[in-house]
Amino acid sequence: MVDIFIDETVNDLLINDLKIIQKSKGFRFTLDSVLLAHFATVKTGDCVIDLGTGTAIIPLLLTTRADKLTVIGVEIQKEMADMAKRTVELNGLSEHISIINQDIGQIRDIFNKNPSLVIANPPYWCVDEGKISADEGRAKSRHEVIGSLKDFVATASRLLNNQGRFALIQRSERMLETLNILAEYQLTPRRIRFVHSFKHKPARHVMIESKKKAVLNLEVLPPLIVYEKQGQYTEEVLAWYSREEK
Amino acid sequence: MVDIFIDETVNDLLINDLKIIQKSKGFRFTLDSVLLAHFATVKTGDCVIDLGTGTAIIPLLLTTRADKLTVIGVEIQKEMADMAKRTVELNGLSEHISIINQDIGQIRDIFNKNPSLVIANPPYWCVDEGKISADEGRAKSRHEVIGSLKDFVATASRLLNNQGRFALIQRSERMLETLNILAEYQLTPRRIRFVHSFKHKPARHVMIESKKKAVLNLEVLPPLIVYEKQGQYTEEVLAWYSREEK
Repeated sequence: MVDIFIDETVNDLLINDLKIIQKSKGFRFTLDSVLLAHFATVKTGDCVIDLGTGTAIIPLLLTTRADKLTVIGVEIQKEMADMAKRTVELNGLSEHISIINQDIGQIRDIFNKNPSLVIANPPYWCVDEGKISADEGRAKSRHEVIGSLKDFVATASRLLNNQGRFALIQRSERMLETLNILAEYQLTPRRIRFVHSFKHKPARHVMIESKKKAVLNLEVLPPLIVYEKQGQYTEEVLAWYSREEK
Repeated sequence: MVDIFIDETVNDLLINDLKIIQKSKGFRFTLDSVLLAHFATVKTGDCVIDLGTGTAIIPLLLTTRADKLTVIGVEIQKEMADMAKRTVELNGLSEHISIINQDIGQIRDIFNKNPSLVIANPPYWCVDEGKISADEGRAKSRHEVIGSLKDFVATASRLLNNQGRFALIQRSERMLETLNILAEYQLTPRRIRFVHSFKHKPARHVMIESKKKAVLNLEVLPPLIVYEKQGQYTEEVLAWYSREEK
């Protein structure tokens, strides 16, 4: 029996019957996490760490992408981490997903071995950009008030062995900064995919999968177009939602 | 009266009645130059330098994009430069386009002022990549046998004033290297556009427009998709060919 509190909602992800607990008012997961969970290279038996897991949306979705995964979601906000733990329990996924309430800068030796994949949907906004939400959960998830892009990249690099993968999503305006930070931490971008709301619109986000200390060999994937027209997802996005099998 | 030699053809560009002289066998211009000429920001009265102009395809097309341009095409291969000069004459564009037969490393003070735009479709292949053509014109246009990417970027940076624009096209696999070289020469990417043959295919090329010593403010434009289906251009590409007005 899983507790659901009065200020929470349970949403059906419409993917493999997955359910997610969220605050009715406060930070709620975005499509960006869904995009990232479908972008990362995920292999059977992978050990994955999701940095700043929030509602645990990424660990949940990763379990639909490959078998025998072990996923650890790290979340610094205690209330958010507790809610994510209940979401894992609600879905009967405790065997595959663990949630740890910790600062990403503090984690080490979570697995007995290094993870094969680190994944992150970090805050997009520097503290001097835009208005910081009055809601603490939203503020910490969206603005770099407790962890900067550099902190996320540094942590990923520290956790990974050579050739280990790191997948992240960021605003495309910050691509050059992101590429520079990845290079600084010896993470070599191997797959890049841009996210466009509509096919004739500029990119809003960029997803980058790097490999630690790998040689240069970059592929820029086909653009990910989210909407065919206003209110209608493209076939690619819709396909995730009808999928039942792995 | 313009000489056309026996080993040459005259092709109609199907854009503003422009004609181009090319070797029947040897280097012929590619669609990539057409894409780049339509990507660059071109303003009335611009002074433009095209580095490695080849057949002069880029200068020709730029004259359809804005009025009162002065374009100088620089080409190191004498035979190619002579042919490009005759193409300019054939189109009655001598007032707007000049061709200079020089090494890009040697040029300086071409205009009395700095150019507002430098443009380049440099060789795509390092000398250790792929087979170098036995045809000298093809070899020099495709492989970095006489000018590397760094030479083109260094020259662009040297010629431009602060805020001057530099537009180039390169294989998307070489994007990271290209971004690093641009940064080294104080050229800040401001507009990036990826070229995909088909919408579900990875990018083949990337077009980057930088500004010298400009602040970071990057826009990743909508993807440029070349073909709707095999043998049929997309509406965007077709639109260039029906355009008569500026």
